Amino acid sequence: MRIDFTKAHATGNDFVMVFDPDDALHELAPQHVAQLCDRHFGVGGDGFIRAVPSDDEGVWFMDYRNADGSAAEMCGNGVRAFVRFLLEHGAVTLGEVDSLPIVTRAGMKHVRRLGDGFEVDLGPWRLEGGEPLVHARGLEVARPGLGIDMGNPHVVVALASREELDALELTSAPAIDPQPPYGANIDFVVPGEPLIREGAGHVAMRVFERGIGETLSCGTGAAATAVAVRHWAGSGAPSLWHVTVPGGEVTARLDAGTDGIEHVFLGGPATLVYTGNITL
Amino acid sequence: MRIDFTKAHATGNDFVMVFDPDDALHELAPQHVAQLCDRHFGVGGDGFIRAVPSDDEGVWFMDYRNADGSAAEMCGNGVRAFVRFLLEHGAVTLGEVDSLPIVTRAGMKHVRRLGDGFEVDLGPWRLEGGEPLVHARGLEVARPGLGIDMGNPHVVVALASREELDALELTSAPAIDPQPPYGANIDFVVPGEPLIREGAGHVAMRVFERGIGETLSCGTGAAATAVAVRHWAGSGAPSLWHVTVPGGEVTARLDAGTDGIEHVFLGGPATLVYTGNITL
Repeated sequence: MRIDFTKAHATGNDFVMVFDPDDALHELAPQHVAQLCDRHFGVGGDGFIRAVPSDDEGVWFMDYRNADGSAAEMCGNGVRAFVRFLLEHGAVTLGEVDSLPIVTRAGMKHVRRLGDGFEVDLGPWRLEGGEPLVHARGLEVARPGLGIDMGNPHVVVALASREELDALELTSAPAIDPQPPYGANIDFVVPGEPLIREGAGHVAMRVFERGIGETLSCGTGAAATAVAVRHWAGSGAPSLWHVTVPGGEVTARLDAGTDGIEHVFLGGPATLVYTGNITL
Repeated sequence: MRIDFTKAHATGNDFVMVFDPDDALHELAPQHVAQLCDRHFGVGGDGFIRAVPSDDEGVWFMDYRNADGSAAEMCGNGVRAFVRFLLEHGAVTLGEVDSLPIVTRAGMKHVRRLGDGFEVDLGPWRLEGGEPLVHARGLEVARPGLGIDMGNPHVVVALASREELDALELTSAPAIDPQPPYGANIDFVVPGEPLIREGAGHVAMRVFERGIGETLSCGTGAAATAVAVRHWAGSGAPSLWHVTVPGGEVTARLDAGTDGIEHVFLGGPATLVYTGNITL
């Protein structure tokens, strides 16, 4: 089986992408996906994304798989790479003020242009999970985190300085006490450089993704972090946050969704890196 | 600049390879190589290899670069991938009993077929570097290692069991006491499964490469390990060793070189994984 693919990244979160307008690869086995995502024996990526038409006219389904081949609901960074990929193939158009619907396993997501990149509505958030203690290598004492549900569970931990953030050793999973029933992604955040622009906040973060390890970027992690720091900052805190992640910078904007509830909108760049073909 | 490349691996040690018969890319900048070898923002690889004709008729030069773009002298696993790549391009022929000369920055190396893979003469070895103590995370006590010079410095440490090998945490550099002036690659070795074939030894190893970290395979590390275990085993020990590395299996054979001194010959597979093109 010969597969033509495109390698893409969005703030360092990287994907093997396949354009599949005829749904020819709908039975691609998990072990094939795992082989494609293997960084030494395959192409390498944090995930695999297949573009396939949905039932709806002109609307595309983002078939997202984790690097181990298992199906995943959504990926906030992946959806930006997905839209870049659809545009590159001429499969969709997206004007400056339009919104593009993308079907995912977590329902329909809406994407619009934002500068040179894109912004996606990640949906509503909830304060949930309490304030468990987080023990991490490189931290002298355990610190309480704030539980945020972004559709997936996060615990956001505030540290005092960039030095403290850099000193973290995230080569093994930090411990959470009490341990959430299904685990959690852990986001460590520190104040960023002086404000990038008036009325916006700026923080820097590192993330340990549940079941994966430290990654260069995590979309829901950036969103949960913005929700947490606004919570801590109290009334008068900005609703737009610039979030520096190891792989670049994204924005997290808190605003009412079409349902009237507050949503988080994740913005950032997406880059197509190269094309290739592989025989599996 | 558009570059056509092939991704290859040899027991998981992986390379971005470019066929450059006209030497068009001889001024490829270190930052371009680093970009190509970046696993998230580029293609990804432990190293970059450019195939370019040497001054000699029909002999090819392996222009090997480390992932950071710096020039490297040689790579025992890379030279197998290099020969596979030259054969794929029809640039050389190699019969069952022939030897193919390859020019490297460490001089000319000779490669022959071995099973489905290839074997390269890595040259002579020396017992050098004493028996420094090695402290590694996951090891309860420091252990003495044996210094071996394979052209680059190695310290080989014997552990008692596969469990002890698996328990090693090689996410950070083990300490060596006394610290060698230019550091050393550290090879941890345990007895392998029962002998694969009569007259051959079998060991399993993990390696922490100096300045890089743990890798799936290290050619000179496998060679140094075979030299060390034969040394420890004393007279009557086999001269052929099967060495299981995290990325597969290689052989290390001790035999007289053309200069009459004992050399180590490294054997193993090499696979071309996919082709691609990227614009830098």
